[in-house]
Amino acid sequence: MRTYRKREVDPGDIRRLLEPGPVILVSTAWKGVPNVMTMGWHMMMGDGPVLVGTYIWDQDYTRDIVTKTKECVINIPTVELLETAIRIGNSTGAEIDKFEAFGLTAGKASKVKAPLIRECYASFECKLFDKTLARKRSLFIWKVVKGHVAASPKYPRTFHYRGDGVFMLSGTNVSRRRLFDPGML
Amino acid sequence: MRTYRKREVDPGDIRRLLEPGPVILVSTAWKGVPNVMTMGWHMMMGDGPVLVGTYIWDQDYTRDIVTKTKECVINIPTVELLETAIRIGNSTGAEIDKFEAFGLTAGKASKVKAPLIRECYASFECKLFDKTLARKRSLFIWKVVKGHVAASPKYPRTFHYRGDGVFMLSGTNVSRRRLFDPGML
Repeated sequence: MRTYRKREVDPGDIRRLLEPGPVILVSTAWKGVPNVMTMGWHMMMGDGPVLVGTYIWDQDYTRDIVTKTKECVINIPTVELLETAIRIGNSTGAEIDKFEAFGLTAGKASKVKAPLIRECYASFECKLFDKTLARKRSLFIWKVVKGHVAASPKYPRTFHYRGDGVFMLSGTNVSRRRLFDPGML
Repeated sequence: MRTYRKREVDPGDIRRLLEPGPVILVSTAWKGVPNVMTMGWHMMMGDGPVLVGTYIWDQDYTRDIVTKTKECVINIPTVELLETAIRIGNSTGAEIDKFEAFGLTAGKASKVKAPLIRECYASFECKLFDKTLARKRSLFIWKVVKGHVAASPKYPRTFHYRGDGVFMLSGTNVSRRRLFDPGML
């Protein structure tokens, strides 16, 4: 599969990629074995520090790992990985090495032990920042500590889950910059 | 502006509309005056009960209102409302009646006093469910108590914020239902 050549970016760069609402791949590692889950429930929660909230249910193997390691990588896949993302969601890292099973290449992160996914358009290294609602609401709030984004294309072709096995692919981009008050940009 | 004729749906129906990540309009009311804010930071947080997390900064007038009323309506706008959504974001309900200023029609909700927006494709009545992280992280978690969705089109043409004044419009829909394990649908 295609890999993206990425460059280091500001952690805040995650906003322009996450806010449109794509399906993401959350990678982790435990005892040297990489793991990954497919996730649709996430949101930006701050830009200084850069915070992201994720819903990780107690039935997810990833929940066990992040509870112990307090680290993850948020990866933004493009449409080439649509079917892989479904297969990742259908299986559990408690039984198989998903990187090996699905042909993903683990890249080395610099601030966490969880792997980057080289086939993804962007990867953001994260450390657990607030677990207040982790047990009660499955909410894990992460601080983004390092960003890696492909230099091109400018706008990745992401996929967004509509339910019932249907995905929306990101469509046309339109600028309405002239309508924004400067303070809102 | 066009209004959508809506029918009542299960509160859980919000998932297929919110999970793809569109910009939403959050409406409220205080002392009989309706208000609305434009929001890009939100996520699904449960499906039994149906929960939605929203980020409402302490600089938003909506924050004052929901802190007092503990109610809101989450509305899903389509592309016809793109420029209106920006104008809503540029202004504050502390100074103007945004419904009047922007030509929005307030519909009567049945379980909350906040208004539905008749020009939106869907509206979901919400009651505050968990405010544990409201002060510290601006996170308000809502229980969806009633849903109203247009009968057509099946897939609304939503807009998604990419930052810098640029929006992504929802694109092609593709089904990969055959790839899902039954339990994952």
